[in-house]
Amino acid sequence: MALPQALENYRKQYRKIKLFQDISSVLHWDSEVMMPEEGREYRSSQIAAVAELTHEWMTDKSFLGQIQNAKQAVNDLPVPEREVWNRELEILMEEKEKADKLPSEFVSEFAKLTNLAHAEWAEAKKEKNFKLFSKRLEELVQLSKKQADYLGYTTEPYDALLDSYEKGAKANQIQNLFLDLKNSLIPIVAKAPNFETPFKKPISIAKQTKFCNRLPAILGLTTKESRLDISNHPFSTSLGKGDKRITTRYSETDPLSSIFGVLHETGHSLYESGLSKMPNWPTPLTEYLSLGIHESQSRLWENQVGRSLPFWEFMYPILLEDFELTEVELPFQKLFKYINSTEKSKIRVEADQVTYNLHIILRFEIERDLINGKIKVNDLPEIWNGKMKESFGLTVENDAEGVLQDIHWSMGAFGYFPTYTLGNIFSAQFFRKFTEEYPDSHNKFSANGDFSDLLNWLRKHIHSKGKIVTIENLVQDATGEPANAKYLISYLEDKVKEVSVSN
Amino acid sequence: MALPQALENYRKQYRKIKLFQDISSVLHWDSEVMMPEEGREYRSSQIAAVAELTHEWMTDKSFLGQIQNAKQAVNDLPVPEREVWNRELEILMEEKEKADKLPSEFVSEFAKLTNLAHAEWAEAKKEKNFKLFSKRLEELVQLSKKQADYLGYTTEPYDALLDSYEKGAKANQIQNLFLDLKNSLIPIVAKAPNFETPFKKPISIAKQTKFCNRLPAILGLTTKESRLDISNHPFSTSLGKGDKRITTRYSETDPLSSIFGVLHETGHSLYESGLSKMPNWPTPLTEYLSLGIHESQSRLWENQVGRSLPFWEFMYPILLEDFELTEVELPFQKLFKYINSTEKSKIRVEADQVTYNLHIILRFEIERDLINGKIKVNDLPEIWNGKMKESFGLTVENDAEGVLQDIHWSMGAFGYFPTYTLGNIFSAQFFRKFTEEYPDSHNKFSANGDFSDLLNWLRKHIHSKGKIVTIENLVQDATGEPANAKYLISYLEDKVKEVSVSN
Repeated sequence: MALPQALENYRKQYRKIKLFQDISSVLHWDSEVMMPEEGREYRSSQIAAVAELTHEWMTDKSFLGQIQNAKQAVNDLPVPEREVWNRELEILMEEKEKADKLPSEFVSEFAKLTNLAHAEWAEAKKEKNFKLFSKRLEELVQLSKKQADYLGYTTEPYDALLDSYEKGAKANQIQNLFLDLKNSLIPIVAKAPNFETPFKKPISIAKQTKFCNRLPAILGLTTKESRLDISNHPFSTSLGKGDKRITTRYSETDPLSSIFGVLHETGHSLYESGLSKMPNWPTPLTEYLSLGIHESQSRLWENQVGRSLPFWEFMYPILLEDFELTEVELPFQKLFKYINSTEKSKIRVEADQVTYNLHIILRFEIERDLINGKIKVNDLPEIWNGKMKESFGLTVENDAEGVLQDIHWSMGAFGYFPTYTLGNIFSAQFFRKFTEEYPDSHNKFSANGDFSDLLNWLRKHIHSKGKIVTIENLVQDATGEPANAKYLISYLEDKVKEVSVSN
Repeated sequence: MALPQALENYRKQYRKIKLFQDISSVLHWDSEVMMPEEGREYRSSQIAAVAELTHEWMTDKSFLGQIQNAKQAVNDLPVPEREVWNRELEILMEEKEKADKLPSEFVSEFAKLTNLAHAEWAEAKKEKNFKLFSKRLEELVQLSKKQADYLGYTTEPYDALLDSYEKGAKANQIQNLFLDLKNSLIPIVAKAPNFETPFKKPISIAKQTKFCNRLPAILGLTTKESRLDISNHPFSTSLGKGDKRITTRYSETDPLSSIFGVLHETGHSLYESGLSKMPNWPTPLTEYLSLGIHESQSRLWENQVGRSLPFWEFMYPILLEDFELTEVELPFQKLFKYINSTEKSKIRVEADQVTYNLHIILRFEIERDLINGKIKVNDLPEIWNGKMKESFGLTVENDAEGVLQDIHWSMGAFGYFPTYTLGNIFSAQFFRKFTEEYPDSHNKFSANGDFSDLLNWLRKHIHSKGKIVTIENLVQDATGEPANAKYLISYLEDKVKEVSVSN
């Protein structure tokens, strides 16, 4: 059935904007993965120009007119369709109103600045010297505060930024949730055993690459619609329908790092791949629901699947073959325990799943104070190092393993970190429900490496929902109860028991 | 000194258009080198949308107003500056008038169609079946005829297309030039010796890659501003200042193929790199002068340098090391002769420099007739195979080694082929002049692999000129005489003698 013309018109313009946003993703991916260094300045201008252009289109009065006409046309549709269309236009208007609040020049300046900042952050990290980055970071903080002012907030500026990543989340609530979580985590961390690496010698990058290249397809992401590359910081991005990109990084002495990077990023891309398969893609309803939900998909594959016994029962012989090791050189139990080892460490991205959320809580506290003007950029290394001592009992030796370790602030992404822990909470809850519904799934994993039940479950309950429902309803509908941290806690408690007693 | 505002304004808009044209180059490069196959359809839409957008901006009335204001402002400048500015605006207006003649929808349709056609051509070539591509090619021919009609011509439609690649060139003149060249080539081809390959066993792609990765830097193109990848068909592209991309392809049994691919594409990228270093880049005057001149730069490094004795005297020990071969396994004289071997063959891109231009003449004759409506798409295989028999005495076994071998027509690039032979003519003339001026350059090549004299000469006489001068003046100024084919002929005659008598 043909759509009313007003709906066609509005969607045509929406899709044009989306097309150029995805072009920006191509430019970003290339600049992180492929681009020679002298291309950076010009590329920054390109990314800024696209951001300015899409922002202009989004805030253009004629687009508002098209949306209003579309709203009129929706009233003539039968009820069930009308509801979905109203949701689509409502989601779009929220996004548009957010864009309307940000002046075009601000968007362009922000895009250009963050692209430049990335290279400077990488350089400062390489030099282990925060001072090389502090001036630019100060600019980013100021710009982010300005952004918070433009967007508006009721309680504190940080809320305005947080809302961009996790709609409706408030710093006060997050703080309470995180305090409870911290209290539950402390006794688990105290009990959790630490195991030494079972890898007695370095594993070449070629061998690791061979193994890593298999993983996305095993999980359900084929090379027809994706590719895996190397970057400084692992990430995933959707460049459009049928084109998902993931990256990892390789360390010869820590071969699990690349593997879990791939599992994590594949989880993100499986979500994006599912979204792209929604009917009528792309519309405002085929976008990801929130960063917390996005992160739940990466965490689920990385942790609930990727650190499970069934997964490694299937992968172990393949790993031995690719790494050219014998069972004697790499005993299964030693490998499996090491995969689930817990250790207080300084680097978030290398942290185990038990201590991980403590890293997030540290960052949340710091960035909240930074945006709310309670602390200064120049004091960041001291504050960071103090908290690391307090929470982990560890001494930060240099800025590269301290305040400079994460990419996020160089991207101007303040308010992003809490979504990682929200993702961990969601992922445990989703996986628990899935295993209840598919009690024999573990056998299918371990015997055949067959993850299709899980992927289908995620497709049905999460990937195919896009933004049709709210975060609250998505979790309720999928699991039968509101989001809560108890499944994460019990998952971690069980995991610690599992590796403490196994042979 | 600050520019008058009217000149600033016009250049700002010009640079915005250029920025997005270069974005399109990123999208293209990625789609040829990196993109997973299911991304193609969406990418085609992106490329088409950017083409439509830049075309809209180029043909926008407000841009014309800005150019007219700029012209006014130029009148107040001192004479020497005024002349350069007038040239800049004149070049831009030529480009703009061309754009004005093409409707926006036509540009978008053309971009989308050629992007789709590429995949279909590749598939048809893989299947060795012209019929899988003939329908799409027919569409491309019809669209190209339409393009010729939009652009206008006095003698024949083909001239309109030719002019886009080589300004001012006419099919009639090219035909005469090519006839003379053919007559001179026939006795050279008859004398030219054929040598068998000195490679007794396959060379792994890893070994070839090691050697190929060295080449751009040796010629003067560093990894800070470039990268080398693999694609189905070697190409080079400039993605902006400080970002040149080249590709090659590898065959284990024909290890020279990848090497000469890299030398050729590096030559193109060195030209683009020089253009990017022109003052005030980017302006209409910092664009490449013509495809013939572009091709002269790739051919010069590929043939005059890359097939020369001094070049291989320097590279030979490095090649032995990278390929893990001894002097006995790969004797220098056998290698050098093979590099300069002549053989009538069916594939243009694998053709030697002596027979190469005969391949171009064949394509020129066919595509001219095709565009002028004298022959039909469905008859192409028969016509192609007939000419191959006539000119080379060879029987085409299937369409992949016949009419489907080249990418150009799938890109809608009719009128492009003749520029290859023009490039060969220019390259021989440039290199002859350079060696006259730098008689000891050969020693520097062979002793140190030092090509800086040559690169500096090209920078000075060609790369730094952009579009400031005409093709005619460029050749005259650089070499002291008009373009002519006698240096190509004498170069090929000398080459044939060199390999016929050397030990």
